[in-house]
Amino acid sequence: MNVQTTIQQSVPERLARVRAIMAREGVDALLVPSADPHLSEYLPGYWQGRRWLSGFDGSVGTLVVTADFAGVWADSRYWEQAEKELAGSGIVLMKLLPGQPGALEWLGDNVAAKGAVAVDGAVMALASARQLEARLQAREVRLVTERDLLAEAWEGRPALPANPVYQHLPPHATVSRATKLAQLRDTLAEKGADWHFIATLDDIAWLFNLRGSDVSYNPVFVSFALIGRDQATLFVGAGKLDEHLSQVLQADGITVRDYSAIHPALAALKSGDRLLLDPARVTCGLLKNLDAGVELLEGLNPTTLSKSRKGEGELEHIRQVMAQDGAALCEFFAWFEAHQGRQLITELTVDEQLTAARARRPGYVSLSFSTIAAFNGNGAMPHYRATEQSHAVIEGDGLLLIDSGGQYLGGTTDITRMVPIGTPSLEQKQDCTRVLKGMIALSRASFPRGILSPLLDAIARAPIWADQVDYGHGTGHGVGYFMNVHEGPQVIAYQAATTPQTAMQAGMISSIEPGTYRPGAWGVRIENLVVNREAGKSAFGDFLAFETLTLCPIDTRCLLPDVLTAEERRWLNDYHATVRERLAPLLQGEALAWLEVRTAAL
Amino acid sequence: MNVQTTIQQSVPERLARVRAIMAREGVDALLVPSADPHLSEYLPGYWQGRRWLSGFDGSVGTLVVTADFAGVWADSRYWEQAEKELAGSGIVLMKLLPGQPGALEWLGDNVAAKGAVAVDGAVMALASARQLEARLQAREVRLVTERDLLAEAWEGRPALPANPVYQHLPPHATVSRATKLAQLRDTLAEKGADWHFIATLDDIAWLFNLRGSDVSYNPVFVSFALIGRDQATLFVGAGKLDEHLSQVLQADGITVRDYSAIHPALAALKSGDRLLLDPARVTCGLLKNLDAGVELLEGLNPTTLSKSRKGEGELEHIRQVMAQDGAALCEFFAWFEAHQGRQLITELTVDEQLTAARARRPGYVSLSFSTIAAFNGNGAMPHYRATEQSHAVIEGDGLLLIDSGGQYLGGTTDITRMVPIGTPSLEQKQDCTRVLKGMIALSRASFPRGILSPLLDAIARAPIWADQVDYGHGTGHGVGYFMNVHEGPQVIAYQAATTPQTAMQAGMISSIEPGTYRPGAWGVRIENLVVNREAGKSAFGDFLAFETLTLCPIDTRCLLPDVLTAEERRWLNDYHATVRERLAPLLQGEALAWLEVRTAAL
Repeated sequence: MNVQTTIQQSVPERLARVRAIMAREGVDALLVPSADPHLSEYLPGYWQGRRWLSGFDGSVGTLVVTADFAGVWADSRYWEQAEKELAGSGIVLMKLLPGQPGALEWLGDNVAAKGAVAVDGAVMALASARQLEARLQAREVRLVTERDLLAEAWEGRPALPANPVYQHLPPHATVSRATKLAQLRDTLAEKGADWHFIATLDDIAWLFNLRGSDVSYNPVFVSFALIGRDQATLFVGAGKLDEHLSQVLQADGITVRDYSAIHPALAALKSGDRLLLDPARVTCGLLKNLDAGVELLEGLNPTTLSKSRKGEGELEHIRQVMAQDGAALCEFFAWFEAHQGRQLITELTVDEQLTAARARRPGYVSLSFSTIAAFNGNGAMPHYRATEQSHAVIEGDGLLLIDSGGQYLGGTTDITRMVPIGTPSLEQKQDCTRVLKGMIALSRASFPRGILSPLLDAIARAPIWADQVDYGHGTGHGVGYFMNVHEGPQVIAYQAATTPQTAMQAGMISSIEPGTYRPGAWGVRIENLVVNREAGKSAFGDFLAFETLTLCPIDTRCLLPDVLTAEERRWLNDYHATVRERLAPLLQGEALAWLEVRTAAL
Repeated sequence: MNVQTTIQQSVPERLARVRAIMAREGVDALLVPSADPHLSEYLPGYWQGRRWLSGFDGSVGTLVVTADFAGVWADSRYWEQAEKELAGSGIVLMKLLPGQPGALEWLGDNVAAKGAVAVDGAVMALASARQLEARLQAREVRLVTERDLLAEAWEGRPALPANPVYQHLPPHATVSRATKLAQLRDTLAEKGADWHFIATLDDIAWLFNLRGSDVSYNPVFVSFALIGRDQATLFVGAGKLDEHLSQVLQADGITVRDYSAIHPALAALKSGDRLLLDPARVTCGLLKNLDAGVELLEGLNPTTLSKSRKGEGELEHIRQVMAQDGAALCEFFAWFEAHQGRQLITELTVDEQLTAARARRPGYVSLSFSTIAAFNGNGAMPHYRATEQSHAVIEGDGLLLIDSGGQYLGGTTDITRMVPIGTPSLEQKQDCTRVLKGMIALSRASFPRGILSPLLDAIARAPIWADQVDYGHGTGHGVGYFMNVHEGPQVIAYQAATTPQTAMQAGMISSIEPGTYRPGAWGVRIENLVVNREAGKSAFGDFLAFETLTLCPIDTRCLLPDVLTAEERRWLNDYHATVRERLAPLLQGEALAWLEVRTAAL
């Protein structure tokens, strides 16, 4: 019996236990978001209540439980996976479509008048809580946020992570924490804020030049920060900082307090104090003891924009990291081509070999996300992950999709490449070629500085829409610097809201990763990272253009060269010439030979 | 002394008179929007108070007058014109930039605490009044909307238009007013509305299959409509409908009342009635006597979406109109080429000759907007209009931009073409070629049904941004069917808000008109009209693609053929082959010969 089956069998019993608690507490509906007090993408086990209660293992999904209904809202990336994992659990998959109502709307429409909806305020964004409260108001339904109803039912709940925190040091850390703090305080002064409360882990790690390993793949640590005009406090679990590091921070004017001390610290803010926070990145539970006289200034965390704009020093490290990462990929691909068809290679083998190749590279810290090695039908699930229990052997004909990345001291990588297995079909090559056309179209684009990033998505999609093909995910996300592989504020996705904070600025790193997914058959995605570079001023304003950072051959055996335009072929040949020039000095033997062959001009 | 000079000399005196009234009434700031009670684009003279008081003749602009300041907010299309027209008036041009604060924000920041801002509520959209009121609240500034402060000062104010109303009849009117009313009532029932109030003239004209000539270029008439579940009332000035037409409407269940009777009619709605209206398309002054118990349902006028989606019958008429309009243009261009350099031709001559050519075509009613014939530097003003006092002679070398259109019983046209004069420069040809690339890129696009139209703009701009060139106006606007040349709800402009109502649906007609403007030197714009056609369903959803409707050669003497890609050249050659095939049967003599030459393949 495998692990997933065990979870699925436990789900009905867990649901029954939670429903009994709900009945006792007079709660009609329980909302369990995929969230923690830091509103992180990857959650420590302690806060994976939605996974524990529903059995759905996807990284994003919202569970609602009532006496006679249980459903998980998940977007199209997760539908295949969710249908498998929820089968037999009694929990319904609620397909979340862009612009369509979700779990909050469902609660507004379905909970009986004067009823009660419970959600743990510790993991509910202030903005979402307000939204939900407004929806519930019409039927006088109460929103109860004071308690974590799972706590009592959840046996064997994991502990809070206790991993050590360490410094991100020069030369890789190119700006000191003192400078970052000073710049943040200038912004606070501009905005008239006395205090700034930060709950987001990547903002905190960036601001203090600290790193950790409390969640998978993201080099962050569980903490809060409260920054005043002349004081700065880091709230972090006891024992996570050693004596030396505490002293280093103290020397920079930073006080260290226990993680749980954030509650009294916020409660101690005085009436009339002006507190800057982002209602989308702070949970309502943290603010419940705030003095009613504290004035909230709501806005993006200033660190989010600062962090997104990589400096020249950081970019120099990133370019080196990209060469090392590309060299690791070449070593893997050379090994793969030499051994594929000669020994048993599964999706798991790919992950092992590729991770090992990365780990040999200088500055390597960890993967930046769970490797997606997905053969044929598995590739149709954009967030597929092979497991011991369920994975494919790579044999026969088709396409292998490999989406992977590493955390290095000098940067974060994220790359997707397609590998032909046996003889890919004409249709598979068509899909690869079309997706590449989309990636090239956006990679070559210039655009006005400050344009809202969702507005650029159509440039990548136009060549794909031309054949009436589309994909449900965004084309690009921001990427951190030895930091989260997904970061804002920019997002190249036509489905995203065109808020002012999504404006494109110089130094931002984004992925460009169009795709095509044919359920049950195959999936295609090709992904490079790019950085916004100043492309000059003209009479029409300031322009930005992308510099492609990722360095790794795009396998032309998956393509139909005649379908590429002359401009597209030129882009690909130029790219391969650069890849060859930059990676050759880092390779030897069969990996170098592989590089030479796979970067040959079309 | 010319007319413009007279206006400019009068402005200080008018301002002084209005300021005296403001002082007497205790008003600190007067807001004069470019608006009427119907929030129309083209205003009858009676409501052109901003023009009268400021001397700025542009079609869009907002005037603010205080005791010691007067300013007109205008967007980049009008800057050149406004600077000329405001010179010496004491009124400042306030350059309006996308996403930047405008007149309402200025009032919020600059009027002293507890002061008063006046605006005529009869011409202030409910949504704008709410927005302004919210801005003024912080400093406890009052918003006074009850009076038209210009009324007393404005000597010789034009009367309300009294032109007759007539029917839009079959075959050109393809859906009866009874059917349109029945469909509208279905929508009201769906939304739970008892009443629907319409103030927008194009919605009213469309709904009732009526047309008029109360404002320039738009075949509409000044009126209101109030639609109930089983009654429909048209409010229109006495004498505008003849006895027969009144009887025809009565037979269709439509009551006709006087224009001013809208006030008692709205005041007569009962507490508990649910009234659907669009707060952006109804002025606050009209609602001031509404019973407080009337429940407002706010949303787009349902007719706006219905009107935007042209049916197959309408499209058949439009295609014929496009051929007639294109033939008129060919006749004009043939005349122009034969006579240019041999006789004095000015921008005004172009307008006269082109208008005469259109007027000879069957079904012609009027121009759809004031012809823009703009030579060299004048072309850099996107909304330039030649006048008797100020216009250019077309001679020497350069580019002539002609943006023009007609109202026909079977449709509305809007087209821009570039004409080479003497020998255009390399840079002029580069600009024309680049703009054409943008137009072709979007014309060829397919896209998912329902995509928000502002998100498509980047497809047209990408080839233009590539050279760090941009333009300040949108790429495309909706176009009516023998109706306003500018209509919503779609708008292909990255500067526009991505509201759900901008979603692309089958049957919508839009312009595609990228441009490049070099102040003082020349301007380039190339414009076709296109219609959203169903392009088929795929596994990825329903797709739309554009069918190009406009039929007229694009002068290849303005282009650099080598800069076009093979695909772009193919598009242009295919387009010209279609133009030749469709227009040749409607032409003879030198116009036919001109068509043959100007549609030769590249």
